[in-house]
Amino acid sequence: MDCIFCKIASQQIPARVAFENDRIIAFHDLFPQAPTHILVIPKTHYSTLNDVPASESALLGEMVRTAILIARELDFADNGYRVVMNCNQDGGQSVDHIHLHLLAGRQLTWPPG
Amino acid sequence: MDCIFCKIASQQIPARVAFENDRIIAFHDLFPQAPTHILVIPKTHYSTLNDVPASESALLGEMVRTAILIARELDFADNGYRVVMNCNQDGGQSVDHIHLHLLAGRQLTWPPG
Repeated sequence: MDCIFCKIASQQIPARVAFENDRIIAFHDLFPQAPTHILVIPKTHYSTLNDVPASESALLGEMVRTAILIARELDFADNGYRVVMNCNQDGGQSVDHIHLHLLAGRQLTWPPG
Repeated sequence: MDCIFCKIASQQIPARVAFENDRIIAFHDLFPQAPTHILVIPKTHYSTLNDVPASESALLGEMVRTAILIARELDFADNGYRVVMNCNQDGGQSVDHIHLHLLAGRQLTWPPG
């Protein structure tokens, strides 16, 4: 696999990890767009949201759940946060391994890009 | 309940519905930020992401899943789309009933707000 996020998931590439379990790893984005900017990814490789089978809907829920847990853990749940997932060109997807952006620590504006 | 999204879910307030099942309803945003801008909400009321119990993680997955299905149905899955969920003040949450924004039909930019 030549996927950079797979390499982070398997610890071949170091990252500043915020959360990890058997299925999910979360780490700080190298190009943060907010004071806190964490990426939540499944360890299983799916290139885009379109490639996630219906049988893996629970995994998508677990990704969002992980964002909520991190928000509590890092104590910005009450102030607030934004969760973003991009798919393909129009969505601005930059790495072909699905990932959830968790942004916090400033007023996020509208529209969301 | 004085929640506008609960009223849409129970058809007390009309909306341009894009998808509906027993647990979820999706409808076009009245203030679209992209050529396609659809809100996906659970019919059950949760004020913020922080209020969704761990037992309802599957519901969060189903919300994302619904966005993927709509993207296919409306034929913008390949071109791409962005999924956004806002929590509380910093996230820019505007209605206190959890909702997922599905945006498509233009190049979404970075940062996401």
